[in-house]
Amino acid sequence: MFIYPSIYRKLRRGPQVILPKDIGIIIAYSGIDKNSVCVDAGTGSGWLAVSLARICKQVYSYDVREDFLKIAQHNKEVLGLDNLVLKQADVFKKIDEKEVDLVTLDLPNAERALKNVKKALKHNGCVVSYLPNIEQVSKYVAALEKKGFVDAYTVEVIVRDMLVRKEGTRPSTKGIWHTGYITFARLP
Amino acid sequence: MFIYPSIYRKLRRGPQVILPKDIGIIIAYSGIDKNSVCVDAGTGSGWLAVSLARICKQVYSYDVREDFLKIAQHNKEVLGLDNLVLKQADVFKKIDEKEVDLVTLDLPNAERALKNVKKALKHNGCVVSYLPNIEQVSKYVAALEKKGFVDAYTVEVIVRDMLVRKEGTRPSTKGIWHTGYITFARLP
Amino acid sequence: MFIYPSIYRKLRRGPQVILPKDIGIIIAYSGIDKNSVCVDAGTGSGWLAVSLARICKQVYSYDVREDFLKIAQHNKEVLGLDNLVLKQADVFKKIDEKEVDLVTLDLPNAERALKNVKKALKHNGCVVSYLPNIEQVSKYVAALEKKGFVDAYTVEVIVRDMLVRKEGTRPSTKGIWHTGYITFARLP
Amino acid sequence: MFIYPSIYRKLRRGPQVILPKDIGIIIAYSGIDKNSVCVDAGTGSGWLAVSLARICKQVYSYDVREDFLKIAQHNKEVLGLDNLVLKQADVFKKIDEKEVDLVTLDLPNAERALKNVKKALKHNGCVVSYLPNIEQVSKYVAALEKKGFVDAYTVEVIVRDMLVRKEGTRPSTKGIWHTGYITFARLP
Repeated sequence: MFIYPSIYRKLRRGPQVILPKDIGIIIAYSGIDKNSVCVDAGTGSGWLAVSLARICKQVYSYDVREDFLKIAQHNKEVLGLDNLVLKQADVFKKIDEKEVDLVTLDLPNAERALKNVKKALKHNGCVVSYLPNIEQVSKYVAALEKKGFVDAYTVEVIVRDMLVRKEGTRPSTKGIWHTGYITFARLP
Repeated sequence: MFIYPSIYRKLRRGPQVILPKDIGIIIAYSGIDKNSVCVDAGTGSGWLAVSLARICKQVYSYDVREDFLKIAQHNKEVLGLDNLVLKQADVFKKIDEKEVDLVTLDLPNAERALKNVKKALKHNGCVVSYLPNIEQVSKYVAALEKKGFVDAYTVEVIVRDMLVRKEGTRPSTKGIWHTGYITFARLP
Repeated sequence: MFIYPSIYRKLRRGPQVILPKDIGIIIAYSGIDKNSVCVDAGTGSGWLAVSLARICKQVYSYDVREDFLKIAQHNKEVLGLDNLVLKQADVFKKIDEKEVDLVTLDLPNAERALKNVKKALKHNGCVVSYLPNIEQVSKYVAALEKKGFVDAYTVEVIVRDMLVRKEGTRPSTKGIWHTGYITFARLP
Repeated sequence: MFIYPSIYRKLRRGPQVILPKDIGIIIAYSGIDKNSVCVDAGTGSGWLAVSLARICKQVYSYDVREDFLKIAQHNKEVLGLDNLVLKQADVFKKIDEKEVDLVTLDLPNAERALKNVKKALKHNGCVVSYLPNIEQVSKYVAALEKKGFVDAYTVEVIVRDMLVRKEGTRPSTKGIWHTGYITFARLP
């Protein structure tokens, strides 16, 4: 009985998306606000990118795949977001923006982007990775330290829905147990 | 080893606060953005109020207690938020604003505010309650239906932190199991 | 990818069963051993009854429904258990046994059996209820206190399975979130 | 407000113990009964060993450390268990018993015992490991496959206690999030 927040019901869904439960924690824990500038990679279906663009001043979202960017372009238009720039480019090679507040990495081998992330982030800026497997997290966290990032902090987010009914209240029988581990870190 | 997002570390904490994990889900599931106008009650330490004000266009936060409003005023100033209005007033009696996008209720007997919430919300506007006990949720959800709200959806949010270390990776031994149940509903 | 312990794979399944995860906690927390005598009601498919009989000296299992007792009889025979007595009778009316170590109640309105449970249990004996909804638990716990039981302790058991694979390790995506709340109490 | 099952309250606690929540799942998922013969290593404080001995026909528990065996000896005597043999010996070197139903491994580098476990277990016998870190589990599961064990299945057990009170019902605020991962496997 999972109910997507209504804005997500309008969106198209191609490749695996980051769910609203994880998007909420990325927003709250990274501390972004309406003055923030964000870089997002890879775009995928663009759910995270549009969610950030609804809140922040400017978002740049990178993906190497044209087919994914088309889905994200559709979602951007559905929500009428002028402050989201979709770019067909590879963050492993280059990030054009400087002095950004947040970089989000929903990519395998996210640690390969850290060199460019470091150049893009402002002082105290935040980098967030979203990785499904523990081994990936472990490798990524080791790379964070090596590159000079601090305050690495990994969480998983479980949103458990309750059945609140006249006949009785209880958690729902089945649910989503795991999507990905989210790791936050800061550039000192 | 719980690490508060850095913006919360600057804030003063008086009465029980809504934690960032719950704030994140309230933001993501209510679907608010930088054009939203919100009403928040009760203010308490103002953590939710300032978090909403960092993202939304305008936030009005109500509390009957002057001592709480002083803490919230401090927190508002620390973050330099001009778009947060703190009001010493009782939402059970009156909500001045109209056509708002979101009303958040962190109050015992939250259902008593629903009559005024209904007048304050715009079409498709969202009301969110935060209640610690199941019996409160059950009573509140029954009142939601009676007052004509739809899509009632109750969740609890569990953020589990992971120890990612050279000597091995595992969830942390102890943690926060429960804060409050969050119920979302919509005015049709 | 939930794998039932192999003994359960041999069993027939009629009405809703108590799952091995909950059976394990009932065994460990009630502290029964091979000298224990148990009363179980209602039998249902008999999964809990046979699990107790595999470990304890003697088990008496009550159900009012003949069709359920036939399924349980089948399961008893599959496992060759001589120390399990299946009884078509109603624990709300009478429990024949005295000085038992454990009574398990997997029944709606379990509190109605407490008067008879009290007569059946030995000093320090344990009563365990299994109830799906919170309102039922709340009512049952109030009745426990009223009837003079002590150390009431309610839990829910979550067994989360992990995918441990060459390509990466993570919790499985979906799983069972909730079956029933288990309440332990003791006769002083 | 965690309440230990009463039998555990009598026990002495030296090195880190396996908690009743995990013991219950080991019992239920391994499928042992009063006819089972078990080997347990390392003994530690002997909580798992005595719990198995209370249920099974015979238990042999191995530890290399004399100080741990003394604590376990105390716990064995408190519970009056004649069917528990404590042995100062190393399962990495040798397991004396043959045709056993269950071997439990609460040891770092548990995979080093698998060669001897294989010789000790009967056909369809079960081996269970208890390991705190994911990297250990991953290594252990790879070794299980290599040694010819089947049906490897890893879980973590979360027992969440509920506050059921007149003033309201809710999960307790804080609790134990993680102890160890339990892996079951079978010798075909």
